[in-house]
Order: sequence, then C-alpha cells, then structure tokens
Amino acid sequence: MGGLSSADTIRLLLAITLMLGFGRLLGELFRKFKQAAVVGEIIAGIILGPTILGLLFPELQQWIFPVEGPVSIAINSLVALSIIFLLLVVGLEVDLGIVLQQGKAALSIGLIGMIVPFIFGASFAYLLPDVLFFEMGDKLIFSLFVGTALAISALPIIARTLMDLNLFKSKTGMTIMAAAMFNDLVGWIAFSVILGLVGAESHGLSIEWTISLTIIFTIFMLFFGRKLIHQILPWINSTFSWPGGIISFMMVLALIGAIITEKIGVHSIFGAFIIGVAIGDSVHLTEKTKEIIHQFITNIFAPLFFVSIGLKVNFIQAFDPLAVIIVVVLGFAGKVIGCGLGAKLMGFKLKDSLAVGFAMNARGVLEIVLGIIALEFGLIGEEFFVAIIILVLLSSVLSSPLVSYFAKESRSYSILELLLPKNIYFSSAETKDQVIRELVKLVCKKEQIDEPKLLEAVLKREEQMTTGIANHLAIPHAKFDVAKPVCAVAINKNGVDFDAPDKLPAKIIFLLITPTDKNELQLQLLSEIAVKFRNKEFAEDLLNVSKPDEFLMKIKQLNS
Amino acid sequence: MGGLSSADTIRLLLAITLMLGFGRLLGELFRKFKQAAVVGEIIAGIILGPTILGLLFPELQQWIFPVEGPVSIAINSLVALSIIFLLLVVGLEVDLGIVLQQGKAALSIGLIGMIVPFIFGASFAYLLPDVLFFEMGDKLIFSLFVGTALAISALPIIARTLMDLNLFKSKTGMTIMAAAMFNDLVGWIAFSVILGLVGAESHGLSIEWTISLTIIFTIFMLFFGRKLIHQILPWINSTFSWPGGIISFMMVLALIGAIITEKIGVHSIFGAFIIGVAIGDSVHLTEKTKEIIHQFITNIFAPLFFVSIGLKVNFIQAFDPLAVIIVVVLGFAGKVIGCGLGAKLMGFKLKDSLAVGFAMNARGVLEIVLGIIALEFGLIGEEFFVAIIILVLLSSVLSSPLVSYFAKESRSYSILELLLPKNIYFSSAETKDQVIRELVKLVCKKEQIDEPKLLEAVLKREEQMTTGIANHLAIPHAKFDVAKPVCAVAINKNGVDFDAPDKLPAKIIFLLITPTDKNELQLQLLSEIAVKFRNKEFAEDLLNVSKPDEFLMKIKQLNS
Repeated sequence: MGGLSSADTIRLLLAITLMLGFGRLLGELFRKFKQAAVVGEIIAGIILGPTILGLLFPELQQWIFPVEGPVSIAINSLVALSIIFLLLVVGLEVDLGIVLQQGKAALSIGLIGMIVPFIFGASFAYLLPDVLFFEMGDKLIFSLFVGTALAISALPIIARTLMDLNLFKSKTGMTIMAAAMFNDLVGWIAFSVILGLVGAESHGLSIEWTISLTIIFTIFMLFFGRKLIHQILPWINSTFSWPGGIISFMMVLALIGAIITEKIGVHSIFGAFIIGVAIGDSVHLTEKTKEIIHQFITNIFAPLFFVSIGLKVNFIQAFDPLAVIIVVVLGFAGKVIGCGLGAKLMGFKLKDSLAVGFAMNARGVLEIVLGIIALEFGLIGEEFFVAIIILVLLSSVLSSPLVSYFAKESRSYSILELLLPKNIYFSSAETKDQVIRELVKLVCKKEQIDEPKLLEAVLKREEQMTTGIANHLAIPHAKFDVAKPVCAVAINKNGVDFDAPDKLPAKIIFLLITPTDKNELQLQLLSEIAVKFRNKEFAEDLLNVSKPDEFLMKIKQLNS
Repeated sequence: MGGLSSADTIRLLLAITLMLGFGRLLGELFRKFKQAAVVGEIIAGIILGPTILGLLFPELQQWIFPVEGPVSIAINSLVALSIIFLLLVVGLEVDLGIVLQQGKAALSIGLIGMIVPFIFGASFAYLLPDVLFFEMGDKLIFSLFVGTALAISALPIIARTLMDLNLFKSKTGMTIMAAAMFNDLVGWIAFSVILGLVGAESHGLSIEWTISLTIIFTIFMLFFGRKLIHQILPWINSTFSWPGGIISFMMVLALIGAIITEKIGVHSIFGAFIIGVAIGDSVHLTEKTKEIIHQFITNIFAPLFFVSIGLKVNFIQAFDPLAVIIVVVLGFAGKVIGCGLGAKLMGFKLKDSLAVGFAMNARGVLEIVLGIIALEFGLIGEEFFVAIIILVLLSSVLSSPLVSYFAKESRSYSILELLLPKNIYFSSAETKDQVIRELVKLVCKKEQIDEPKLLEAVLKREEQMTTGIANHLAIPHAKFDVAKPVCAVAINKNGVDFDAPDKLPAKIIFLLITPTDKNELQLQLLSEIAVKFRNKEFAEDLLNVSKPDEFLMKIKQLNS
C-alpha cells in the first residue's frame, strides 16, 4: 500500500488489536459491575501505556506504541477520526425537541448545575493557579477552562445510569436527560469560544472572527441546517440504497462539519458534534440506521479513543494528590450542589434532588475530549489532565450507586437484570406441585431464604388462583421478605398442567419473589414477563434451547 | 493528538471526505443503473487521482492526496485497515455449508471455471511475458500470478447480480453462489501460495515455511478454529453486551488473523478473509449482527479502498491497449468457456450454461486486492495492473445485462423494482371504476400502451371477480402485451368500495399489468403485494405518507 512497511503494518495491527481487544474486554468487565464501559476502557489504556506496561517492559511498550514515526502517525490519525465519529454519535443523542419540552425544570437544573461548578472551578483557578499547575499563558483563559471543565456532564453515562436503574422513562429521568443535553450544548459552545481565544492565532484568523464564525456555524446548523437536513433525509432514504445511503451521508456530513470547525480554529470534533445534534432528532432517521452507526462507532471507534488516553500520559508520574483532591472535591461539590439546587427550586423532594445531582455529576466523553484538547493546546499541564481523568473515573463509578441509593424508592427492576444463568434449569417434573418445589428449592439454596416459609407463600398464592398464563407460560409468584426481587426459571419440555386459560401445559415456568412492600413492582415484573410471551411461536422457539445462556440470549434479543 | 498538525488534519479530513462522499455518490449512481457500486467507486478514484484531477489541477491533487508525508501515511494505513475489514465481510459471505450442499455441480463449475482461465492466462504469460509488461523476477511466478488473476471471480458482485435479477434463490442461483464461493476459497489459497513464493524472504521465513504455515493456518481455521468459534459465540452473546460484544470480537479476530498471515509472509488480508469464512456460517451470528458489520464496512470502509485504487496509478499513462485487450479477452473467454463448460457437463441447458458463465465472469474485490498486492510486491507493472482493473470494470458492468439476456426465461421481478415514484399518486376518486380509469391512464401515458384496450382488459378481469383483497388493499390487474411488468399505485385516503371480503374500503390500489405469456410471474407479484399487507396496521401507516418517496421508503423498509 506504500506508506507502511510490512513490519510497520504488523506493529500497527498489533497496536490496534490490543487497544480494541483489551479495551473492550475491560469495558465489558466494568459493565458487568454496572459501571460505564468507558471506565474500563480508560483503565485498559493506562495499563497498556507508559504507566504500567511501560514501567514493566519499557522496550516492548515503545515498540508497540511508539511516540513517533509512521506507526505513531497512523494510530494518532485513526484516533482523531475515532473522536470525530464518536462525537457525531454523542451529538445524535441530544434531542433538541426533548430539551424544549422539559422546559423550565431542565433549564433550571442545567443552568444552575453549570453555573455553580463553573464558579467554583474558575474562581479557585484564578485565585490559586499554581496548585492546578498553571504554567504559562493567560490566567483568565486558564480559569475559564477550569470552570468549563468542571461544569460539563456526560450525557451517555447519565443515560446509561438511568437505563440501568430503570429511571429513564420516569419524569425525573426525562428531566435529567433534558438538563444534561442542555448542559452538553451550552458547555460545548462555551468551550469552543475558549478554544477560539487560545487557538485562533495558529489558524490565521483573529479571535473575533473565530468566535463569530463558531457562533454563526452553530446557529446556522441548529436552525437552518437542521431543517434542511430533515428535508433532504427522506429523499436520500428513497433515492439511495437503504440504510447504506443515509449512513454514508451522515458520516460525510460529520466530516464536513469537522473540517469547517477545524478551519475556523475550534477543533474538528466540535463540528461533528453539532452535525450530530442537527441530524439526531429527525423522524426520518430510523432506529435501524441509528443502531448501525451507534453500535459500530461505540464498539469499534470509541474504545480506540478511550484507550489512547492512557497511552499519552504517565498517570503515576503526573499524579499530584493535591490537584486531584481539589479537582474532585470542586467537581463533585459544584455539580451536586448546583444541580441539586436547581431541582429543589423546581419542587423536587430532597432525596430526588440529590439523585438528580449525583446523576448529573457523572463525567465522560466530553470532559475527556476537552481535557485532551486543552493538553494539546498547552492550556493545561499533565498533572491537571490526570486530575480531570480521575474526576471522570470517580464521578462515573460513583454515579450509579449514589443515584441508586437516593432514588431507592423509585428504583425499579427489569426482568432481564434478574435473570441469571444459575437460576435457569431444565426440569423434568411431572406436576405443578413438583416444579414449584424445585424452583423454590433452587432460589432458597442460592439466595439463603427460609425454604419452607417461601414454599408455603407460593403455594398459598397458587391456591387462590392459578398462575398459568397462556402460550406455555406460568408464573408462580409470592411477596416475601427479600431485599430485592428474585427470579428463577424452569424449562420443562414435556409440560406440566397449570390449568391455563388456553389449556396448554406450562413448559416455561418463572418463579418470581418480590419484596413484601412493593405491590407495583410485582405487577410490573409479572406483566413484563407476560408481554414477552405474547407470541406462542416465541415460547416454542425458547423450548429449543439447550443451555441457560441460550435462553437468556433469546430473551435479550427479543427485547432489543 | 500529536502526529498530525492542524493543517495536516484538515487535509486528511478533506481527503477522506472526498473519497467517501464522491465514491459513494458515484457508487449509488451506478447502482441506479443496475451496476455494482464498486464500479462507480473505482471510477470516482480515477477522477480524483492523477488521471483526471491530477491532469487538470496537479497542485491541488497533490495537496489533497500527497504521495508522501504524514497525510499519505494516515490515508494509506486507513486504506490498509479498510481492506482487512472488507475482506472479513467478503469472507463472511462464503458459506461452507452451501458449498458442500451444492456439491458436484458447484465443484464442477468452480473447478473447470478456474482451470480454464488459469491455463489461458498462465500459458500466455509464460509464452509472451513482454506483452504483459513482465519486467524482472521469476517468469514462472509471474505466469502463475497472471493465471490466478484471471481465474478469480467476485462473490459479492455475483451475489448482487443474482439478487437484482431475482435469481438468487433459484437452483441455478444457488449453484452459481456455491461455485463462486469455492472459487474464492481455492483462488485465494493459490494466491497466498504465490505470495509466499515471492514475499517470503522479506519476512525472514523460508518459502517452504511460509507455504506450510499458510496451509496449516487455513486448515486449522476452517476446521478446528471454525468449530471453536461456533462454540464461543453463544457464550459471547450471553456474557457480553449484545450485539456490541460479538461485533468487537469479530473485528479483533479479523485483526489477529491479519497479523498472523502478515507475519507468515502472505499479506494481512488473507487472514481476515479466512477468519470471515470461519465465522460466517455460524448459526449464532444473527442477521442483525451481520447487518451492522456489513452495512458499516461496505458503506464506509469499502469505498475508501476502492477509491484509493484510482489514486495510486495514472490510468491514462499506464494504459496499454494491447495488454488490456489480451487480459480482457483471455479473462472473458477463459471464465465463460470454463464455467459454461462446467455447467453444461452438469446437464444445464446451453443458455443457462452461458448465464452461469457470464455470472461467474464478474470480477471484483478479490481481483483488485490481488492486483494491488502484486503491484506492491513488484510482481507486475502498472500497465498490467490497469489492464486488470479494466477487466474488473468491464466484466462487472457486462455481467448483469448478459446474465439477464441469457437467463431471460427464468428472469423474475420483485414488486420493489417495479414501483417507481412517478407511478404512485394520491387519488380522490370516489368509485372503483373511476380509480381504475385513473390508474390505467397513468400507466398508458408513461409506458405508451394502448389505453382503451388495457382499460377493457382490466375491467373485464374485474367483472369476473373483485380484486379487493383485505386491509384496505385492492389489486386490479390484467395480462397484456408488454415487455415487462408494469405497476402503478393509487393512494386514496377516503377509500373506494372494492367489495373486499372484510368489507373495508380500498385505500391503497395497485394496478398490475404483466406480460401475456407469464402466468407464474403474475401470481408471484400478486402474492408479493398481498403478503406485504398482511397487517392492517401497516396499511394504515402507509396512508399517512404525503409523498410517493415516503410510500416507497415504507415498503422498502418493511422488506428488509
């Protein structure tokens, strides 16, 4: 191909394989523990970078991930492309419509939630710049940056936390989402202005021009451009191959946006982000198209970027405890107080306000990108960069448990998170009674519940009315003294009579135990299971599985 | 990010935007004319490359697409990655199961279809090497390469041609597909051996080792590796996020395969291809996963590669008429005679045998990749490379019309290819008679058919029995003296009574005219329309469209 020798090609492929493979692996591992995948991916980078691998095997590390030469150029440009595509996807998630709908509450949380941490950060940086390793340049710009860095939230992580906790579609959830989108949008525009202040000269444009052009570009894309795109999309959908045409169109548009903003002097990714926002809420963008772009970019490009962060900096060398503590404390306090206050003012209860605050406290993609660019521009030093990354990691990791704690009362569960392979088994029981006993035994062994008492509760409920539903499904259930719901499944290919209305024998039997005080939760889970079995074909298909894993997989796929 | 300056980043983004945007645009344009998109993409590259843009604006061309420096390295490594991913997708399409099922016929066509063009090419090259610009090195290896280059078919283009002509699921179609897969597999193994012969030394392995290791890798992956992958996939599906986990797994595997074969000395893409074949036919690879990978790679990565071909070589300077004529004639003759013979021996009719021959004659991805690698290795000169690319373009372009001509009698149509925006309109007719008259008028104006006669035929059919189906659908139809089927659609939101069994008024009325001698075709198209309207919801949803484009889009999406 020219450019790269065979030996260099091997190094490049090796580097990408390690970044993608190891990054995704740790990402998935963190997901298992209900953490954002990005946390795992960043840690994978720290392990592969100078901090760990470089400490243990410096030569090997330098050979795979060189800091100069063709392999380095190839990796860096691939990473640069990855961020552009990633920001397109982040932009796609911002739904201007929702921001406007949620109106006042979102505005109040978003705005106060930005102003407070901004003031915290900016004033600290202005008063004590040396503590944050301010080295040279304009102190005012540095302070503005520190403020902005602490004020930006992470839409994707917030969305994931809300989904994991089943809060996404609640009113609180929608308000948080809208506030976060508003936050992203305003935060980024502010950041692009700061970049204009610093970087403009190097692009041959005056500061005034850079800022004016940035604002013109943003306003044009979010109003006229957005309308224009929404008009063009149906034509593209019907004229070109589908969904290939629209996928290419979106990527090309993101690249054009990137070129424009890079040329203006505010980094390429800002353009990709704005293009994403402009396309995102079009009704002509089908779920399928979104999913293809989303899946490919978040699973292939995004990990390359997140892993690359750890490759750039030695996190041990550049670790300064004081700077880290200050950034973390200011970041947490500013965001939680700001957003919490915004929510409280809008009439939220104290606990819910704190849940909103900790949800909005999560940092992620945008924060990191912002840090990387600031590092490149020489606006901040490595020590402050490391502090930002630690703020990102800590705030993301703590977001889910803290939100879960404060929103405990509104916390709900999905049947998918309750189903575990160890609680699914193949039964050859011949009677209803027998299968219920098996199921009760299984959950009591695994969950340390008093077996005779539970059995009594389940059988008592069964006596009142049969729990055979239809389409070979039965859901014996009971309320019991458990901390969270428990579920187990028996797959019985011969079927046992559950006296179902359609007279079909039950072949898939769910046992569902829910906490005594949660009436609604029981109903919700029961109906969630029942809805999945609307089709008899689906139930029959499920009977063909030979392993618990396969059973789970089929249920998962039906869901998506 | 280091590596690229802001100015270089702009150039890189500009280059990628042009390659992707212009490539995809011409690709879609060629698709409109029932050609393979790859043809348009290659032509886009020739226009952007030294041949056209470089002739008109040499400085601009050199600025955007430099031949050295960081931007060149970045583009080249991105292209290198693109081919690896593309070959993964090509490999995924090879279904070992089908190859074995179709057995004898596929084997006969595939094998004779390789041997004949191979002998044609290899013997010509050995006897008259100078005509094909043989310069230096081993004449035997050169001859083996020329033979192999002429013997490889293009699975994706063949598949597309068959789908376009609705021959894909016919027996002939399946046989052709199986033969093409067999051809790909054997052709590539042969080529990798040739590469081993040339390139081995530069990798520090002896020729014997390179060839042995290649064969071991291939056999291992296609038997043990394939089984192992099929066992691991369900675990990945259920343990990791879905489909993100499996997508990353596949890409990482392809990269590992690429590293192994590059290290062995037979180019990275061979490994990616074999990995694709090994994963491709797993039942645990759902359509959705395949589609995400397929769509993203063919619409983003593949165009980058195809466009890059034109950037490498000046097609006018390196154009040698004699070499082109010889390569094209030998290529066509060898393939059509070989495959046709193979088909004839298996009892196919003469015309069908020729259809098989011209279908298998299509060249594409693999041929080009093979040419590029040979050029890189210094095995062939630019003149022969250009001749190969022209063989690819000509054989792909001619494949569809020639197969269509010879398979005319088995040619069928899909309702999707008959529906054109100009034949869809919004009607406000109030009676059945009125709407039929409108429809007949529309098709006669557009297709130059005798209006009164057609109207008579349609009304006569209507008298025998109503064509109101159900769910607001009616399909008045008639056989008539037309060369190919004609279809028009009236969307009537108020509905007209068509005396349908479910008593619902017809709101979507298809007029379907088919050639007089094609009974089966009429039935097939009628049922194809009816099947689409099995759901009343779908019909009702269709009524919400405000433009013919949207109507088509919804029908298209239902299909996929």
